[in-house]
Order: sequence, then structure tokens, then C-alpha cells
Amino acid sequence: MNPKLFAAASAAALVSFAAPALADEGMWTFDNFPSAEVEKAYGVKIDKRWLDTVQAASVRLTSGCSASVVSGEGLVMTNDHCVIDCQQALSTAEQDYVKNGFVPAGRSEERTCPGMQAEILTSISDVTGEINAATAGKTGGDFIRARDAAIAEAESAACAKDSATERCQVVSLYRGGQYKLYKYRKYADVRLAFAPEYASAFFGGDPDNFNFPRFNLDAAFLRLYENGKPARTPQHLTWVARAPKEGEPVFVSGNPGSTDRLMTVSQLETQRDLAIPIAQLQRSELRGRLLQFSAENAEHKRIALDTLTGVENSFKVFYGRQFALNDKAFMDAKRASEAELKAKVAADPKLAAEVGDPWGEIDKAQAAYAEHFLRYRQLETAPTTSDLFAYARALVRGAQERAKPAAERLPEFGEARLPLLEKQLLDAQPVEAPLEELALAYWLSKTREYLLTDDPAVKLLLGKESPEALAERLATTSKLADPAVRKALWDGGLAAVQASDDPMIQLVLRTDPAARAARSAWESQVSGPIDRAAEKIAKARFAVYGDAVYPDATFTARLSYGKVAGWTHRGQTVPAFTDFAGLYDRATGAEPYQLAPRWGQAQSKLNPKTVFNFVTTNDIIGGNSGSPVVNAKGEVLGAAFDGNIHSLGGNYGYDGTANRTVVVSTAAITEALDKVYGQQALLKELKAR
Amino acid sequence: MNPKLFAAASAAALVSFAAPALADEGMWTFDNFPSAEVEKAYGVKIDKRWLDTVQAASVRLTSGCSASVVSGEGLVMTNDHCVIDCQQALSTAEQDYVKNGFVPAGRSEERTCPGMQAEILTSISDVTGEINAATAGKTGGDFIRARDAAIAEAESAACAKDSATERCQVVSLYRGGQYKLYKYRKYADVRLAFAPEYASAFFGGDPDNFNFPRFNLDAAFLRLYENGKPARTPQHLTWVARAPKEGEPVFVSGNPGSTDRLMTVSQLETQRDLAIPIAQLQRSELRGRLLQFSAENAEHKRIALDTLTGVENSFKVFYGRQFALNDKAFMDAKRASEAELKAKVAADPKLAAEVGDPWGEIDKAQAAYAEHFLRYRQLETAPTTSDLFAYARALVRGAQERAKPAAERLPEFGEARLPLLEKQLLDAQPVEAPLEELALAYWLSKTREYLLTDDPAVKLLLGKESPEALAERLATTSKLADPAVRKALWDGGLAAVQASDDPMIQLVLRTDPAARAARSAWESQVSGPIDRAAEKIAKARFAVYGDAVYPDATFTARLSYGKVAGWTHRGQTVPAFTDFAGLYDRATGAEPYQLAPRWGQAQSKLNPKTVFNFVTTNDIIGGNSGSPVVNAKGEVLGAAFDGNIHSLGGNYGYDGTANRTVVVSTAAITEALDKVYGQQALLKELKAR
Repeated sequence: MNPKLFAAASAAALVSFAAPALADEGMWTFDNFPSAEVEKAYGVKIDKRWLDTVQAASVRLTSGCSASVVSGEGLVMTNDHCVIDCQQALSTAEQDYVKNGFVPAGRSEERTCPGMQAEILTSISDVTGEINAATAGKTGGDFIRARDAAIAEAESAACAKDSATERCQVVSLYRGGQYKLYKYRKYADVRLAFAPEYASAFFGGDPDNFNFPRFNLDAAFLRLYENGKPARTPQHLTWVARAPKEGEPVFVSGNPGSTDRLMTVSQLETQRDLAIPIAQLQRSELRGRLLQFSAENAEHKRIALDTLTGVENSFKVFYGRQFALNDKAFMDAKRASEAELKAKVAADPKLAAEVGDPWGEIDKAQAAYAEHFLRYRQLETAPTTSDLFAYARALVRGAQERAKPAAERLPEFGEARLPLLEKQLLDAQPVEAPLEELALAYWLSKTREYLLTDDPAVKLLLGKESPEALAERLATTSKLADPAVRKALWDGGLAAVQASDDPMIQLVLRTDPAARAARSAWESQVSGPIDRAAEKIAKARFAVYGDAVYPDATFTARLSYGKVAGWTHRGQTVPAFTDFAGLYDRATGAEPYQLAPRWGQAQSKLNPKTVFNFVTTNDIIGGNSGSPVVNAKGEVLGAAFDGNIHSLGGNYGYDGTANRTVVVSTAAITEALDKVYGQQALLKELKAR
Repeated sequence: MNPKLFAAASAAALVSFAAPALADEGMWTFDNFPSAEVEKAYGVKIDKRWLDTVQAASVRLTSGCSASVVSGEGLVMTNDHCVIDCQQALSTAEQDYVKNGFVPAGRSEERTCPGMQAEILTSISDVTGEINAATAGKTGGDFIRARDAAIAEAESAACAKDSATERCQVVSLYRGGQYKLYKYRKYADVRLAFAPEYASAFFGGDPDNFNFPRFNLDAAFLRLYENGKPARTPQHLTWVARAPKEGEPVFVSGNPGSTDRLMTVSQLETQRDLAIPIAQLQRSELRGRLLQFSAENAEHKRIALDTLTGVENSFKVFYGRQFALNDKAFMDAKRASEAELKAKVAADPKLAAEVGDPWGEIDKAQAAYAEHFLRYRQLETAPTTSDLFAYARALVRGAQERAKPAAERLPEFGEARLPLLEKQLLDAQPVEAPLEELALAYWLSKTREYLLTDDPAVKLLLGKESPEALAERLATTSKLADPAVRKALWDGGLAAVQASDDPMIQLVLRTDPAARAARSAWESQVSGPIDRAAEKIAKARFAVYGDAVYPDATFTARLSYGKVAGWTHRGQTVPAFTDFAGLYDRATGAEPYQLAPRWGQAQSKLNPKTVFNFVTTNDIIGGNSGSPVVNAKGEVLGAAFDGNIHSLGGNYGYDGTANRTVVVSTAAITEALDKVYGQQALLKELKAR
């Protein structure tokens, strides 16, 4: 959090941006893991059997997290913060599972998480040739459309037979350098099996987030169900309750969400000077609105907690990124890295002719980025802050797009994408009108502020109403919170949608052409040229550095390696471990340093020396939350739940001297399940061999 | 507001940073006005008599604004937004003068504005020699202390005889290149004579702020009182109700608050990369809190309006500055300008030896800036968001400092500064507990967030309490809102303060050593070295460019020249004038585009072609609000109240192609006083010859 600390850390000369990767650097795909490097560094063999076992036990949650199968009966470990939206969705004003935790008496009380799907990667195949053939000779918006149509076709074809249990997804790796088809076993019925109290999972709250030492039981359990029964999952990780040792080699298997390590310098400058500052200023205002809203009364605090936690987390993430990009030494290193690749390309006339000047093309597209950014952001990407708006857009666009041939649809409405979209649209979830009103007033007023009152799209949005009055009317009179209403509109298609008198549907019908126009301009002028050029840079990078490079993160299965280790910064050494005693020392009695009542009561029963949280050198990023931390024997030692403050520049490069993954140990989870929560059945299941 | 517009504007090649000034550029002191340049450009003579008359009719308001004397009986014109805090202070839940305007039936109903003082500059004398003698050979914190002590002594000595009617202030011009003693006739009894409704003064609200066309009656009248009676003010401007003409030369006489045009490149980079981003992120959160607070109920909206308006205005100001500094062309021009000055110094060996390398010294101090910024900001400058805190600090420090010899005090407690400080501390003003709670919770939580939970000063601030609980306790139990309590503590001195059980006094007593330490570190490591080096750069600039340069703004009397003119940007021409008809066209019935009821009723009586607002090329900045816009005959044509969006980079340089001053015309004020507000007595007074 502290920019002083941060700036100093990011200026370290060890930050790497290109091949070859530094020790412990990299979010590697399972089909290109550097086992030889790992053996050289740590003396442990990661063979195909280990990789297959860990991959088969690694889970992706559609809520944006990672997880692992830890029993033969479908039990899955993740972070509590990965299920907090489920806890919130299952709660009411009377029974708050976020505050009190979800502590069922047994399996029969496990409850389905609305909108959540779990996915296990089963195979990877290369489709680069097909996609490249479809886009050959195309540029700008044409390129985007041809690429997306080819992807939709590949996805539909691969999973046509088993769409009930399989999901297929084409992933663009190395920014278009490769296209791979990932096939998943999917579980659409995921139930909450255990979650601790917010005060335990998130002890220290926002102030301690991304800091260390930490004392968080940020762990929860889900269970995969098939046909109404716990799924059989013979390929699971082995649970051990022992704490890891300092220096022990560890592997994190999960789905890092996205990184920008392969961005060009001009792209980074645009992020630094335009995109991040505006997003952060808006986010900070939203945070202020949510904080004040939460202070109004206990029910507002309850309904806003999940949203506020997410906004505060994102704020800190981008705060760190901003200060990394503001660091001169950091950007100079980026420039040097880009210059090196360019020089190597230039030194090879054949390669140079083939590659052309993609960097120049991307530089040129930055002016278009600045030109189109605000409209694209405010009209196309920002309104989904509101659930009601997101529902209305899915219904309106879904009706319009499903009426088109597959090749002409927006990619999010491709045939293979529809099952998950339907689940997320139609599962019953609470929609809280006061929070919706806040979200809509925020979005509408920021849109007017940034696009200006006289913008035609703003006039279309607001008419003669103020943002605040319109937000209130939409939040209190739209019926889209009712899943039956959504189902009727979804099933009714375009005719039903066009006939609807729901004010939110009408707002989207009225304004969607402007949003689509903003998106279309963005694709033809900005993302099209950039993505096209990035493919060429990827080609150049493969040619120069071979395949000893890892792709930017794409929320797909990756494996990172490293070891358990603290770090030293400005002469101060931060040890690798915390223990239960430290939690009790840090508690003040006031939020967010207030113990959950169960923890107050259990203090005398707990072993105070139990390792609670620990840090490792693994290279991870958001999306990795919930990832199993596994040793060389394939045993699970904990769940990764955070990075330290020095990890925030990790979006752009890895600094092994200070970048650390923060983990909650299986030792702590075991002790807490036993002595704080009395979850003997879960423990028995975890320890079954 | 639009960064696209802004970036394009600021990249214009015509932006000037150094001497010689461009046409219409400059905030000139009255003793160094470029009359010859003006005559050459506009064919009008600005002679000593004109300058003396305008200076004698120009007013500085301690609320941070400018104004002008417009009758012989103490009547003063300024902006409504310059008296909104007075309107708010005089209001209650039952009678809201902000919303309804302050429209008295006659002079007997005029009411004193608490805390406000009006000041008219009467003489300028040079004290550079004395100050330089006192600081000779001193550096860092010693330099700051010696300089401030010499300033305090000069101020006390000059106004010792007439402290009841005079104020003396030493002003540092050209960043220390000159020290001048400004002597003012002061009026401590300033009464509100007329103010319109918020909806009229601020029609279009935040969305239209800094944009043009505009339709704002941002004008108000005050009256200076002496001994309980209207002051005699024979030297006043002549009121004319005619609108200006396109191209007419005009002069703005006021007190531009501050500019950073003479900052070095490394200072600008620190502003761009550190100071502004953090201030804006915090401000944006505060804005969000205030917006949600205001949405809670009508009374919250009323009590927060003044604060929210100020926060939103500052947000937009710094948004513009941020994007100016993010503009590469803009910064490259700054670099070129600095390189030119350095080269000219280097070409003169004698000068080079005398000047040394102040740029290098300032560059070096930037690391210390980054090191100390957060502590200095959070502990020393940020807490004054709260009135109660500001009172408590003034009482605690005032007691401590007044016990010291004059030369050892913090400068704000110098003998010559005490009368205004006492007035501001002791005048009765409403303190709204719910707003105080918001302000304190914001400050305390941001301080913990940025300095971290384990910082000793944070622990001292919070103890075992949460920021929210502590804020509530302070806001609801402190008695400092009562002016009698403040008076007793002020009069009682250190013994009374130390014996006080007021929780706010106790908080400040407990934490002030940490705040003073942060300030002291700042002065010795950051502001001391920078101010010392800036004096040398000023010396170099005088040597190279002579005195045909103007100093950075210092909230002291300045005069700018220019003409009435619209502008063209990206092929679109914005005309110089708006009229009343435009107001009615723009009204939607929803805030902030809702007409005040009086304006709805008066529509048929008003001449729709009356020039409402207009723009000029004058070079102004915040602090100039309320400045009279005067023609070559010394007639007042309006009151400056804003800049256009392109003016926001004006903090760093002037761009005459697009930078515009926005003015409310005396024609509009006259018509509105007559037909909307029925203020015949005021009109008669204004028109008296």
C-alpha cells in the first residue's frame, strides 16, 4: 500500500520482462512447464504423472477464482473471499452467513451457490492454424469479427456432444501468438460446504489487505454435485496438516486472471496516463459512496459488504500498478527490454521482413485509444456495475444476437457460451434495490460528467431526468430482480423483449445502439489493430527467444514454482510465517481487528504456535485466489489468498526479491475446523486416504 | 473536463513558460504592469491613475476570493460562490439562504459573514534585503526558520500602530526572488447584502463547471462596515449595465491564488506522479462519501452543500492539472524551457558561479519529498478537513506558540497574524456534527490506510478504537462548536488547554508532537532545500530575462489584460457570449438544470437577449473568483467566476488560443436585480455617479 515501499521495490534491477525468465518467475501452462529448471534450482522432479494429477485436481470457479479437489467425494477447497458472494446470496436480513459464517451441521445442509460453476481442465489442443487461416489478410474490426467467429465455431464444434458436462473455450496465449482449445469437465451444481465468519477470513480488513504479516482464515469449502449427489472425484490432492518449512519448494496451481507483461511501452504509458487514473478516480468515488451507504445502518452494511470488499481490493491493486508504472527505473527497464527484442528482430532481415513494425502500429493505436476510451468505458463496460442493468443487457442483446447466425454474433453469445450465460442470468439471486440505486446513480452521473451533458448518448440515457431520479425509478420499478421475469423474457426472445414495459429493458433498448457503436469503434480502431500487431510481436518473440517463455495470464490453468521464504526490504526482514498467537496479539476489539466470537471462545483450546499464514516466492496474480499450494509430493499445504504489497507491480513484471504469495496453511485450517468450528465430518473426509 | 479535449489543447505549441510572456499572458503585479505592451497590442493607455484607481477598488476576501468596490457606501461585488459559506453559516434547517438566496428588503437586513475579512491593498514596499540578510548562509530547516522569523518581524513592525484597521503581509514573489511588504486597509465586519439562489448562481452544477457556454448568475454583494456603519468608499469602480463587445480589451484585477509555472521539471514530475494522484484519489473518495451523505435526507444535503461544491470544484481543477502534466508535448516544452535557462546561465561564467546548480538541488529534494510526503500530508495538512480539529489545533498550538518569543513561533502564530486567526477561531459559526463525523472518519481511515496500521502515529491517533467509532465520539462529545468554549480556551492559554477534558483537544495534545515532527522533517528535507534553491533560480531568471517577467500567483493583487473572445478547438468555434434565452433553453426541470422559482416566474419580463456570461482571454486562476472585469475607462463589465476547460492547465502555463476566463456580465446582474429580485435600492446605489 505504501508507495514509498512500493517505489523502492519496483525499482529493483531484478525485475524481468522477457525471456529467459528469472528464478521462480512465470505462470506456466501445464503443457510447457519448465521441469528441468525446477529440478536444477530445487532438486525435485516434477514429472508428467505429478502434472496430470495436480491438473486433474485443480478447479476453476466461474466467480473468478481457483480451487482444488481435496477429497474423493467432490470436496473443494478455495478462499473464503471466493465464496463471499455465495454467502451473501444465501443470506437474509435475519440470517447473515457472511458475518456469522456458513457452518452446516452436515452434508444435508450444504446449499447451492447461485450462478457458480466449477470447471476442471481435461485437455488442451492447438487451434492456432484454424484461427490464423480465418483471419488471414484481415485488419481492424474485420480481424476481430473473423477471429471471434472462428473461435465460436471451434468451441461449438468441440463440445457439441456433451454440453451438459463439458465446456470448451479457445484461449489466446502470448497475446495471439497461440490459440488453444481448452476442454473442461464442468459442474454447474456447486454447493457451499463451509465458510468462516468475515471477521476471521478477512481479519485486518482493507488496511491489512496486501500486507503481511497476516492472520486470515481465508479458506472455505465447496462440494461438486452431479445429479443431486456429491460428485465422485478420485483424482484429488492429499491433505496434510503439517506446516511447510522455510525454503521448501512449493507449486501453485490455479488460474491467474490477467497480466500485462507483454504489453508494449506505449500501451503501458496509456495505462499509466489515462486508463488507470480514470478508473481509479471513479472507483475511489464509488468506494466513498459505498462506505457512507454502509455507515447508514446494519442492513445497508450487510448488503453492500461483498461489493465494497471487491471495490477496495481493486482500488489497492490498481494503486500498486499505478505506482509501478510511475516508477522511472521500472519503465526504463521496460524500454530496454523492448529495444532488445526490436534489435534482435532487426538483426535478422528475413524475420524483420516478416514481422514488420507492429510496435509502430500499436503506438499509433494509442491515439485512437485516447480518443475512444471514455465512450467505450462509460457506455459499454461501466454500466454493468448494476445487476439489473447487466440482466437487461443480457436479455436485450441475447434476444438480438441469438436471432443471428452463429458467425455473426457478438462472441459472448456464441453457442458454446450460452449455457453458462443462462445459468448466471436465470439462477435466483437477491438484488438489493438500495444498492442498485447507488450503483446506477453512480454510473449515470459519472457518464454525464465524463462525456458531458450535451453528448447525444447522455441525452438518450437521461432524457429530462437527473441521474439520481432515474436511478431511483429504475431500481424501484424494474421487475428484473425476479428470475421468473427474466426467464420469460429470455425464452420469449426479441418479441418479448421489445414488448416489455420494464424500465430497465426500455433503457437498454433505447441506448444500446450507442453502446454498440462505442464498442464497434473500439474494435475497429483500438483493439483490432492492437491485437493484430500483438500477434506479430508474439511471432517475433518466439523466433528470438524460443518457447522458454510463458504467456500473459488468461484466467486459465497455470502452474508456478517457488519456495517458502520471507523477504528483506530496506534492511527489514519479514519472516515467512505467522501463527495463531499473533492473531490474538493483533486483535483490538474494534473492526476490522475484532475477533469473531467463536475465536474468542476457542483461544484456550488452540495451539498458539500453529502456523496460520505464510509467504512463498511463487509468481501469481488475481484469479489465483484459492489456488492449492502443493509440495513436490503432491500434498496440499495451503490455499493462496493474496500477494504482499510488492506483488502489485506483478502485473507488469516479476521481482523475486520481494514479490510474495500469501497462503493460509492447511495446518491452520485443520486446527480451526477441529477446535473452532467442530467440523469433525469434514476433517475425517479430508484426512481419508 | 474531457481529457481528450484537454490533452489536445495543452499540446498546443503556443504554451509559454518563461519570459518573454505571450500576448495576454501574465498575472502582473500593480508595480510592474506592462502598460507599453498593452498599448501596443490594444491601443489603450493604462496609466498610473487608472492603476491606482483600480487597485484602490479591488478587494481581497479572506475566504479565498476577489471582489470590487462598486459604490461609495461600501458595496462590494463578488461571486456567489465566494459567499456561499456565509450563506450556509447564516442558514438553519428552517431558513436556507443557499437554496433560497439572501434577498434582504433593505440595508438593515444585511448580516455579518462570520470569519470573513475584506482587504484593500494600500502600499507595496521592498523588503528583499532584510529577509536575505536574515537568511544569509542558512540552509534547510534553519533557512525556513530564519526567513519566517524575519518575515514575522517585518510584518509586526509595519502594522504595529494600526492593527485594528491595517494588515501587513510579506509576500514572497518569484519563488523567493523578491520579498515585498503588502499593506492593506482591512474590514473585519463584512455583511452579506445580496446573494441569489444556488440554482441560479450554479445552474448546471458540477457537470457544467469549467465548461462553456454557461448561464450562471454567479454574483453577490457584500458591504464593508466600519463601527457598525457602512464604510465610506469614495474610490470605487463605475458600474455600467452595457454588455462588452467582441474584441474589447478588458482587465481582470484580483488575487490569483497560486500557480506553479516556475516549478522545475522534477517538481512537476513529483506533482504528476505522486502528489496529485494521491490527493485526487482521496478527494474522490471524500466526494463519494459526501454525495451519499447528501442523498440521505434534505438536511444532510443542506449542511453538506458548501463542502461538496468545494470538493467537486477541486476535483475538476486537479483532474485538469493531472492531464496537463500527463501530456508529453506539454512536458517536453517545459523541459526545453528549463534547458534554455540553464544554457543561458552556463554561457555566463560569473552568473553560473553565483547561481550554482539549484536545479540539481531541487532534483535531489524530490526523493525526500517522496519519502516524507504521506506523513506530512496525513498528519500535518489533511486533518483540517474537520472544523473541530482545526479549532483544536489552533487552540493547542496557539497556546504553545504564543508562550514563545516572536522569533521562535510557527509563522502562522506571528504577532501580525493573530487578529485574523482570532476572528476565524472565535466568530460564531455552525458546526454540523454529522458532517464532522464524516470528515473525521474519512481522515482517520485514510491516515491508517496510507501510513499503515502499525505506524506509531496511527496507533497514537486511534488507540484501540476504529476510525469510525473515534470519529463519532469526537463529533458528538467535543464542545468546541461553542464559541464561548473556544474563547475560554484561547484566553486561558496553555494551562486551560492542558486541563481541558474535551476529547478533540486531548486528541490534538496527544498527537501534535507527531504532526510537528512530520512538518519539521518536511521543512528541513523538502521545503527548505527547495525554497532556498528556488531563490537562486529566480536570481538566474532575473539576470537572463530582466524584469519583463511576472511572478507565480500568491493570492495577492494582480492585474491581467486581454480581450473578449470565444475560441476554436478542433474546428469547433465557441462564441464569446451567452444570453438569458439560453438559460431557459437549457433548463430541464431536474437538478442541476432546474430554474430557481423566481427565474421561472420572471421569464416573460426579462429581455432574452441580455448577455448573461462571456469569455475573455485574460490569464487568471482560482482566487481570482469575484474579480472585477474592467475596461480601459475603468468601468466594471462583470465579475470573473470561472475558467473554461482549457484553463485548467493554466497552473503550469498559459495557452492564449484556448484558455478563457468566464465572466458574469453587469448587464445580466442589472437586469436580474431589477426584474427577478426587485432590488431597486441596490440598483440605485450601483448607478449613482
